[in-house]
Amino acid sequence: MKKLINDPSEVVSDALRGVAAAHPELKVDHENRVVYRADAPVRGKVGLVSGGGSGHEPMHGGFVGPGMLDAACAGEVFTSPVPDQMLAATRYVDGGAGVLHIVKNYTGDVMNFDMAAELAAADGVEVASVVIDDDVAVRDSLYTAGRRGVGATVLVEKIAGAAAEAGRPLAAVADVAKKVNAGARSMGMALTSCTVPAAGKPTFDLPDDEMEIGIGIHGEPGRERVPLEPARRVAERLLEPIVSDLGLSGGDSVLAFVNGMGGTPLLELYLMYAEVASVLERAGVGIARSLVGNYITSLEMAGCSVTLLRVDDELLELWDAPVRTPGLRWGI
Amino acid sequence: MKKLINDPSEVVSDALRGVAAAHPELKVDHENRVVYRADAPVRGKVGLVSGGGSGHEPMHGGFVGPGMLDAACAGEVFTSPVPDQMLAATRYVDGGAGVLHIVKNYTGDVMNFDMAAELAAADGVEVASVVIDDDVAVRDSLYTAGRRGVGATVLVEKIAGAAAEAGRPLAAVADVAKKVNAGARSMGMALTSCTVPAAGKPTFDLPDDEMEIGIGIHGEPGRERVPLEPARRVAERLLEPIVSDLGLSGGDSVLAFVNGMGGTPLLELYLMYAEVASVLERAGVGIARSLVGNYITSLEMAGCSVTLLRVDDELLELWDAPVRTPGLRWGI
Repeated sequence: MKKLINDPSEVVSDALRGVAAAHPELKVDHENRVVYRADAPVRGKVGLVSGGGSGHEPMHGGFVGPGMLDAACAGEVFTSPVPDQMLAATRYVDGGAGVLHIVKNYTGDVMNFDMAAELAAADGVEVASVVIDDDVAVRDSLYTAGRRGVGATVLVEKIAGAAAEAGRPLAAVADVAKKVNAGARSMGMALTSCTVPAAGKPTFDLPDDEMEIGIGIHGEPGRERVPLEPARRVAERLLEPIVSDLGLSGGDSVLAFVNGMGGTPLLELYLMYAEVASVLERAGVGIARSLVGNYITSLEMAGCSVTLLRVDDELLELWDAPVRTPGLRWGI
Repeated sequence: MKKLINDPSEVVSDALRGVAAAHPELKVDHENRVVYRADAPVRGKVGLVSGGGSGHEPMHGGFVGPGMLDAACAGEVFTSPVPDQMLAATRYVDGGAGVLHIVKNYTGDVMNFDMAAELAAADGVEVASVVIDDDVAVRDSLYTAGRRGVGATVLVEKIAGAAAEAGRPLAAVADVAKKVNAGARSMGMALTSCTVPAAGKPTFDLPDDEMEIGIGIHGEPGRERVPLEPARRVAERLLEPIVSDLGLSGGDSVLAFVNGMGGTPLLELYLMYAEVASVLERAGVGIARSLVGNYITSLEMAGCSVTLLRVDDELLELWDAPVRTPGLRWGI
């Protein structure tokens, strides 16, 4: 295992020290492994909390800041945080207008956020939750009942974050988060595995001439293994189920998001974006906004995912609103 | 070779199609492989041009936009662009106040930018050049007479870009670029090689239990190969020659930049940043600003580099100025 780490069991703690040192505008509760806005709680604003296993950076800690999340809790690599972490995060960001939990649909995350919401409610904090389940690759999977939550999470965090910043009440922020989740679909693929530090060896084996279509962000199996193909064919494979499931047709407008799994160079991600744009152009689907880069990763896995979000004026205005986080920033 | 590409000989062209599709605020001259601001030339502003071999994305095309570069030309992977590309870029961005060429110190880049500057001068365009040579690892190397240009290039492009945006004349923009280069030192390391698409196999072999200290951004040999070590020891190895060469001592203030080579997860880069911050704290060196992420990469190489820039009020003000590029953005 070749990694820039100290003790494999201290990877998350050590990285959180780096986040604290690099970003004075954020605070880190090292005991609970919570990254939160230094100015939290923001009085009268709905607080946004997300979190999940580590290894998907910049998600979620890198999306904390004005216009996006108020706090994120970090589990061990590819392991859900515990309810106490989520409760601590919820308390940090409760500014009196309630707190929204943004939860990727994995069994541990859903269960633990549910428990944290109950504990917070017992404290008198109003909590709403939205579960993200945008991955069209598989119906159920290793860690999931129902579809997995993947790339749409980035879009939900940005757009719901803007809605909260604009002063919308909890129910309205939850509604727009659900609207984004309902209008977004994703599918990923991998060329290589990744290695969880504590495991010390690759999560799975993939022959030199094969790729995995529909991979999960923890290396969970996808739909099928197929021989390597040109990027233009990979783009078609990823888009076909997304376009079909969203019911997109000529004249529709989307945000197109090509995400790197961590080990694929940006050069290749832009190349993939070119192929995605070609497929959509042929289908008559317009691209209103785009995002290309490493936003929800699987350690050093090589591969990518594509997410399409059906957009309207409301979502575009919220997408364009200022955001200031380590991982996504514009306007401020 | 596992890559998200079509024809290995078309990788750069295909990726540039993606850049054009994803960024309507940029234009791409596909014949000359030049990425430039859609609003170029900006009347009365010094134009900034850089460029070099591809494979280091987001550098340089991802740093084109207000507050940074006006144009970037893309060579084949790890191969200098030709003078005609640089000349085309220079013409696109000449707004009447002259053009600065920011050139990484590699033999081909230096020679070709020199020739382009002569051709542009014959056209009546005033051109100044700054050569970046911040890599303390080796004195000369495979592609270089003198030190190689690496991480400081990102800082020069940002800071000189802000100076140009503020309306400074050509000589003053060149001066601040030289000041950044003079005050910055870098050193990198690799855990794995990368694979140039046209070559189809790894650039070098590195045993499973070794790392290369002082690696170049094209996989050129560094100082030595040593057994794998904890990140805290790697940070010390990279910082020792930087701190010594810059003559840093207690009370000095720096911008600290931990850069990923492309295949190393952000989790590890933040962990490395924590170690870098610890070393500097022990030395009494203050960190005024930081940058952590993949900014000057070597395809999918795993590893990192550290750059320190000695800062003063002038450089901090220019660093903090608004910038809007695909790879670096704040304030606008």
